[in-house]
Amino acid sequence: MKVLVINCGSSSLKYQLLNPSTGELFAIGLCDRIGIANSKLEYEIPATDFELEINQDLPNHKIALELVVKTITDKEHGVVASIEEIDAIGHRIVHGGEKFAYSVMLDETVLAAIEENNELAPLHNPANLMGVRTCMELMPGKPNVAVFDTAFHQTMPAKAFMYPLPYADYTELKVRKYGFHGTSHLFVSNEMNRIMGNPEHSKIIVCHLGNGASITAVQDGKSVDTSMGLTPLQGLMMGTRCGDVDPATVLFIKNKRNLTDKEMDDRLNKQSGILGIFGKSSDCRDMENGIKAGDERAILAEDMMIYRLKSYIGAYSAAMGGLDAICFTGGIGENSAAIREGAVKGLEFIGAKIDTAINSTRKKGIVKLSTEDSRVLIYKIPTNEELVIARDTYKIVNENK
Amino acid sequence: MKVLVINCGSSSLKYQLLNPSTGELFAIGLCDRIGIANSKLEYEIPATDFELEINQDLPNHKIALELVVKTITDKEHGVVASIEEIDAIGHRIVHGGEKFAYSVMLDETVLAAIEENNELAPLHNPANLMGVRTCMELMPGKPNVAVFDTAFHQTMPAKAFMYPLPYADYTELKVRKYGFHGTSHLFVSNEMNRIMGNPEHSKIIVCHLGNGASITAVQDGKSVDTSMGLTPLQGLMMGTRCGDVDPATVLFIKNKRNLTDKEMDDRLNKQSGILGIFGKSSDCRDMENGIKAGDERAILAEDMMIYRLKSYIGAYSAAMGGLDAICFTGGIGENSAAIREGAVKGLEFIGAKIDTAINSTRKKGIVKLSTEDSRVLIYKIPTNEELVIARDTYKIVNENK
Repeated sequence: MKVLVINCGSSSLKYQLLNPSTGELFAIGLCDRIGIANSKLEYEIPATDFELEINQDLPNHKIALELVVKTITDKEHGVVASIEEIDAIGHRIVHGGEKFAYSVMLDETVLAAIEENNELAPLHNPANLMGVRTCMELMPGKPNVAVFDTAFHQTMPAKAFMYPLPYADYTELKVRKYGFHGTSHLFVSNEMNRIMGNPEHSKIIVCHLGNGASITAVQDGKSVDTSMGLTPLQGLMMGTRCGDVDPATVLFIKNKRNLTDKEMDDRLNKQSGILGIFGKSSDCRDMENGIKAGDERAILAEDMMIYRLKSYIGAYSAAMGGLDAICFTGGIGENSAAIREGAVKGLEFIGAKIDTAINSTRKKGIVKLSTEDSRVLIYKIPTNEELVIARDTYKIVNENK
Repeated sequence: MKVLVINCGSSSLKYQLLNPSTGELFAIGLCDRIGIANSKLEYEIPATDFELEINQDLPNHKIALELVVKTITDKEHGVVASIEEIDAIGHRIVHGGEKFAYSVMLDETVLAAIEENNELAPLHNPANLMGVRTCMELMPGKPNVAVFDTAFHQTMPAKAFMYPLPYADYTELKVRKYGFHGTSHLFVSNEMNRIMGNPEHSKIIVCHLGNGASITAVQDGKSVDTSMGLTPLQGLMMGTRCGDVDPATVLFIKNKRNLTDKEMDDRLNKQSGILGIFGKSSDCRDMENGIKAGDERAILAEDMMIYRLKSYIGAYSAAMGGLDAICFTGGIGENSAAIREGAVKGLEFIGAKIDTAINSTRKKGIVKLSTEDSRVLIYKIPTNEELVIARDTYKIVNENK
């Protein structure tokens, strides 16, 4: 069984070919700068550490995907003899709106239904769907499955997903909290439940901390609240996104600075977060180097990130009426010992104690970070969104046979 | 000792004459609809239950205040023989910005410094300052003291008051969290500390729930975080204000509905909150009657209010690293048993247990609501912002003698 996982952005196309049952990764790569000068394909075979970079003009996604197919079926360095060996294609789709609480087999009807959510994710969904259509065209007859970033969060109760805005903004404009990073929160919380021996009831908080960051309360395996909202702007402080602010700041700053709506939107999404406070970079590692060099704004930026994360852990514990485990994942969650330690320090009153020695080691894979006497488990669990997509694709294809 | 407390709005003037030491209230009242048709003065002497309503044209605040002075010094129903008996005047000023962490004696220099914050509270500060100037004109020589809604929160650390926005928005535009209801949070947390025997260290959460609502974490007597922000829009769900939402909703709804910035601001401040969800009223009592009648949107509105409040209690417990007491105050906090019970139900894991029988009684005054075995104390404590203003006025006047 081989599933091709496609994550198509407006000028990029990430792909993985993997076995959904074993997780074995046959090939992984990226087409970058599609439609822009200096485009290229990257290709890697993890089993042999074979790496290839092809610098070639990629004017559109179709030509990019043709190059992907050519590369993975190449006689010399390919991993399959022909596309016949690819059983199905799984697509990451950012926004499934309220319609899609589960992954779904793609056809024209489903594509049209997904398109209805395009205005909720205007930067992502059209690109994701272009990836689907390109695959349908280049590999006709192959089953294509949509796996949504939002689907896992469709179990949130209304008290968590509704905003206290005029009700018509929900019914007419679909304004509500959707949440994102669903495949990651699902994967990590499932791993945590497995580690705990799959208890009948569980209260888990997953902190997915990357350049984008979100935190989810997972009760009995279901998402009951998450920090991202209508868009991925809400919630935690991120690389360049502000997260939670007084909503009145939006129009206040826009008017004081005489900005257009688009400029203000860019200010909140691309010039805020770590970049806004630290000033020199949006990268967490640069911020941590700044802290070592005594940069006061780097220190402030990390203080704020940690404080906001800790507050959310408290909020979601209260929302679930207790807490069994805290999981860290994503680039920052898996690698920044300082942010993990900061976020749980002071939470001893709810039974969470971190082993600072273990936390500061750079051990790979799943690592238990809580002390033996900590009532709340604290874990670092590497996420694997592509594996979730491949597994769901396999499952949906089998169900539709 | 008699202090006149003035709370001047754009078309109203609330006043109290009281003894700052004993809290004895000599007179209380309101001039309403100043500068609008059908203006009137209300006047009450609590000691004798004497009530008076004077329907008279009040074209401006000067004429309104003249009528207040005439009424309280009236030979028949007045409470003082002349304004000579009034020792000082205390003014509620909404926004003190970063300059005013304490109450201050008012003079032209201070007035100018307060005016610099007017654009942070364009609806409130100019009216507050008009009240000051009118008192200075009508009662020359009397000491006037400014007591700020924001001052108590000036102890917040940077990690709590900074927004993850471009740093220049803080330095150039003064965009940060200020917080409001400071006199109420100060009064109630002081009362709670007194009840606990003034421990050296304490972790208190004050829920001030009225038509406007905010929640404050008070550690060792100091505000360390509060839910209102740059403006009173942020934080809890209120009568007509949305509180926390994805900041991206602001421009999203504005553009979908083709609104002006002013219309969008009104939508967030005046058409959201309880009114937005329930639809029929912004009043908590109407919402609770709706719930009794089975109105689904009333039920949703209360669920959301409670859920958001509970989440904040969790967040602020985490921020302080523990919790000793939860206090409810304000019109809703003092009167809605359902909201109090809902907000703390499920918080047994942090040691908070409410006595539902005591909570549902309508006992007046300070009432202990937690069970005897609850580690976290839960109290209902009626607020008295005017008494704080009078006390601060008395203190500042004495210090400046």
